Amino acid sequence: MQHRAYGSLGVAEICTRADVRKGSFYHFFESKQALTLATIDAHWQAEGALWDAALDVEAPALTRLGRLLATLIAEQHRAHRRTGVVHGCLYANLALELSTQDRLVQTRLEEIFNEQIALVQAVLEDAGAEHAVPPESADRATARAVLAQYEGIVMFAKLANDPAVLDDIWEQTMRIIGAKIPLTLG
Amino acid sequence: MQHRAYGSLGVAEICTRADVRKGSFYHFFESKQALTLATIDAHWQAEGALWDAALDVEAPALTRLGRLLATLIAEQHRAHRRTGVVHGCLYANLALELSTQDRLVQTRLEEIFNEQIALVQAVLEDAGAEHAVPPESADRATARAVLAQYEGIVMFAKLANDPAVLDDIWEQTMRIIGAKIPLTLG
Repeated sequence: MQHRAYGSLGVAEICTRADVRKGSFYHFFESKQALTLATIDAHWQAEGALWDAALDVEAPALTRLGRLLATLIAEQHRAHRRTGVVHGCLYANLALELSTQDRLVQTRLEEIFNEQIALVQAVLEDAGAEHAVPPESADRATARAVLAQYEGIVMFAKLANDPAVLDDIWEQTMRIIGAKIPLTLG
Repeated sequence: MQHRAYGSLGVAEICTRADVRKGSFYHFFESKQALTLATIDAHWQAEGALWDAALDVEAPALTRLGRLLATLIAEQHRAHRRTGVVHGCLYANLALELSTQDRLVQTRLEEIFNEQIALVQAVLEDAGAEHAVPPESADRATARAVLAQYEGIVMFAKLANDPAVLDDIWEQTMRIIGAKIPLTLG
């Protein structure tokens, strides 16, 4: 589901790839939608752990934000090395393909993006308290802009199938948040 | 194709909706891929005219950039009023759904995004010459960041099915390009 469009992937093919029978599939998942929701949750559980590892450390706020972006970019490079394909963002892929058709998936994706926006906003509030960004950058709109910028660049990286497209995202991110001191990503 | 996923839309349904026979369809289009390429080109022809109308005027560069974003946002509002659905960006929708599967579509989408990036870069170069942005903002990376930011916010607007999500994009865009004077969008 990470590097194939949802609509082109049928339960029969999923079962063949996973070497299970259709009966077994439907024993665990009511439908392809149920599998999709489980995939989204499993993905966010694993990715959320990476977010925590980057953000839940004793370090200046912008260092933590830099670590988060470096982690996400490294994951895109790693997937590309392993599969030859830039996977992009599972949530964005599903959002653009399914959000007008599947209310349950749409709701779950919005919840995850809202969690991500809140996590970034918390870092920006810390950065504001540390006087590393101006106070007006410590708001939800700026946090959402940081993620929007990332998602847009991920889309360009996926289209070019080149994870290096992501490598200069930090400079633009610093401009969005109004960071005063140039920092190296990492 | 604007508000349905590509994979979920078959030629049979397209023919039913358009009230034509399958034979007629295949008289004009070799395949669904051929229709997709024609749709992309027709869309960019129409949308490109909106870009020109916003950018090819006698006005300061940032006013023209503001007009472009206002035009794109107005289009999202208009489609939402007409259909009840935020269409998002046709190119991004197809990029995330198809780019790993369809080389011709992928190539065409990259060309269009490159045209868009070049158009924004040209405006930024004018803005640099007018001292409205710092010289380092008049580059391709910044132009791409402006579009990435727009595409990311469009994805959030599509997911929330709320075009108002786009309304405060100008403030973040000004920060990306390092604009010194706050300008009103429009």
